[in-house]
Amino acid sequence: MALNSFIEVQPDSHFPIQNLPYGVFKPSPESAARPGVAIGDYVLDLSEVASAGLFDGPILKDSSDCFHQPNMNKFLALGRPAWKEARATLQKLLSSTEPTLRENTDLRQKSLVPMEKAEMLLPIAIGDYTDFSTSIHHAKNCGLLFQGTPELPPNWLHLPTGYHGRASSVVISGTDIIRPRGQGRPAGNSPPYFGPSLKLDFELEMATVVGPGNELGKPVDVNQAEDHIFGLVLLNDWSAMDFLDWETVPLGPFLGKSFGTTISPWIVTLEALEPFACDAPKQEPQPLPYLAEKISKSYDILLEAKIKPATQKDSIVTTKSNLKHLYWTLTQQLAQHTINGCNLMPGDVLATGTICGPEPESLGCLLELTWNGQRPLSLNGTTRTFLEDGDEVIITGYCKVLAYI
Amino acid sequence: MALNSFIEVQPDSHFPIQNLPYGVFKPSPESAARPGVAIGDYVLDLSEVASAGLFDGPILKDSSDCFHQPNMNKFLALGRPAWKEARATLQKLLSSTEPTLRENTDLRQKSLVPMEKAEMLLPIAIGDYTDFSTSIHHAKNCGLLFQGTPELPPNWLHLPTGYHGRASSVVISGTDIIRPRGQGRPAGNSPPYFGPSLKLDFELEMATVVGPGNELGKPVDVNQAEDHIFGLVLLNDWSAMDFLDWETVPLGPFLGKSFGTTISPWIVTLEALEPFACDAPKQEPQPLPYLAEKISKSYDILLEAKIKPATQKDSIVTTKSNLKHLYWTLTQQLAQHTINGCNLMPGDVLATGTICGPEPESLGCLLELTWNGQRPLSLNGTTRTFLEDGDEVIITGYCKVLAYI
Repeated sequence: MALNSFIEVQPDSHFPIQNLPYGVFKPSPESAARPGVAIGDYVLDLSEVASAGLFDGPILKDSSDCFHQPNMNKFLALGRPAWKEARATLQKLLSSTEPTLRENTDLRQKSLVPMEKAEMLLPIAIGDYTDFSTSIHHAKNCGLLFQGTPELPPNWLHLPTGYHGRASSVVISGTDIIRPRGQGRPAGNSPPYFGPSLKLDFELEMATVVGPGNELGKPVDVNQAEDHIFGLVLLNDWSAMDFLDWETVPLGPFLGKSFGTTISPWIVTLEALEPFACDAPKQEPQPLPYLAEKISKSYDILLEAKIKPATQKDSIVTTKSNLKHLYWTLTQQLAQHTINGCNLMPGDVLATGTICGPEPESLGCLLELTWNGQRPLSLNGTTRTFLEDGDEVIITGYCKVLAYI
Repeated sequence: MALNSFIEVQPDSHFPIQNLPYGVFKPSPESAARPGVAIGDYVLDLSEVASAGLFDGPILKDSSDCFHQPNMNKFLALGRPAWKEARATLQKLLSSTEPTLRENTDLRQKSLVPMEKAEMLLPIAIGDYTDFSTSIHHAKNCGLLFQGTPELPPNWLHLPTGYHGRASSVVISGTDIIRPRGQGRPAGNSPPYFGPSLKLDFELEMATVVGPGNELGKPVDVNQAEDHIFGLVLLNDWSAMDFLDWETVPLGPFLGKSFGTTISPWIVTLEALEPFACDAPKQEPQPLPYLAEKISKSYDILLEAKIKPATQKDSIVTTKSNLKHLYWTLTQQLAQHTINGCNLMPGDVLATGTICGPEPESLGCLLELTWNGQRPLSLNGTTRTFLEDGDEVIITGYCKVLAYI
């Protein structure tokens, strides 16, 4: 018998009782920000659940002030035992067989906020943001487009490559992104181009939200790295491909990225994703021992990117990809990040890099989809090489079950 | 008549009343962290000055809670008018002609903490840390050492190049740095090297501490950029040169840097540095209009790096350099950082990159001083190619006046 909620959840909802992703929201414009979980068309206000004394498990009964915070960081710092306890408490509370919340009209009124009334906010205070490059298809395409060769960089198969990103410009889904100005590669002997980016792009990514983290100088073992992953967000790594082309050698991506990075309001926990775990791709050559995992795990998460031009009513799917295409696992990324002793903190964000699959329709950015603008993409009567002003990019992720039986 | 303090200041002290750099400290192990300024051999406790109601200027009289904080960020957010007011208040309070503090035994006792008793802490909460590469001498040497050519990267003379660094691992002077482990370039067809860095290095840098900052999407004009610079710190950009050699292409410096970055406890304000302002080097080609400054200003700050091997009593000078050697100005770095709309926040740190001059003794890291280990450096009877365990690196900066008359 599948677990069901007393709250009605449409069959195509992303928020059944099996998911329960965490976010931060304001129930009304005047109210303070607080954590919540999504259930059907509602947000369950965790500050109200905490105030009612319903987080009564051994860990959270003394730590439930983590739900009276304007971000999830304090909860993230508590680690997996607390996360499991919270999930068990919430699944019980929301289940159809449990009267505590269902029969308490007053608490239901206070704690269940219709999603369309909730203002979603950045769920975490992000100390540091890192972007990896873990899709082999994307890496090969970038080699072809920027260096004219499909050969991977020599280090690529030996470690998950990555770079430090900008934390201050990570914003919540729905935030307008202003087309950046900057320099592009000069034509011949002219001075460099300067002006608005002419190759503004999205990049379809997901990202690990870091839990407890580690002390400076103390690497996380790859086989324990999962304990430091609270969950995943969707991430749009907005990119000015023309600026990147000019700036990336020799110091890496910088201003072609730091004008804005969008994350989803909801963090889906690893617990919720566990039923969709799958084997990660085989790695050849074998990773060095410090990156060799006892269990090499990925997740079967279907990902879609859509563009909605300002002039059109409907959005058009540009990309169908899947997290499971990534070569390096999330745990390998985290272990690699700390192998030098670098300290990760609760709320840090580690993005996967553009998630491309092997098929043409699974390319995760316009740079690849249009082959650097050479093959415009047809979008329901109009075309795109790169993003135009007013375009909306919609990224969706979901896991498929035939039925909860 | 020079401004003098009633507190005795040795002639060779770095902390005369003309300097008054800001830091954060604990007067005793049990006490809370609070801001202070250095004067002679003392730290003046600004929380005590604030509690005594002595910040009575028009801005700070209502904002002096910024001195009851565990970091300088709130004060930094107030901007230059508040910084000037604080400086005027403190110079007056500490001057030999002013009785308010000098004659108040109780307040003097409470507010003047002997420097050797004060535990210095990281003075700022660092949201984001960026590292530029603005020394033309360093850039040419790196080209020779890593790419075999002294030619600058094509973008180098058109913009201050930089990369996002890791904020979490920025630590205060005196913090032990643990030799990082990681991957180095493979020899021939072997797997990559894995183990402790064999080319651990220091890099002599300074860094801008950002004041008010800007909103996402709103660049700072280069001619107003100075308003966003609170002051400067010394910075040691510890580097694992072997890891960098293997990881930097294509995504830039990452784990070869993020195991630790040390800053000085004291932030020297631009007001204190103003008497030492000098012309910045001529830039050719002319920068694009958005980087062209009405006044192109640098500072004549003498910089020294010393190494003290664990086995020796004395430290040995390895580098004598100067901030004024840098090609790109601090204001150009800040303007460039925001031209794409990237938002800077109070307490952000923008490092200059290794500060090398044209002379052999002005090279700011062992990589250059020993030409990648090929010419060991003689250190008072011992030698160094790169840093050895137990080595202490001491970076000093000072400005020279013949006399305050």
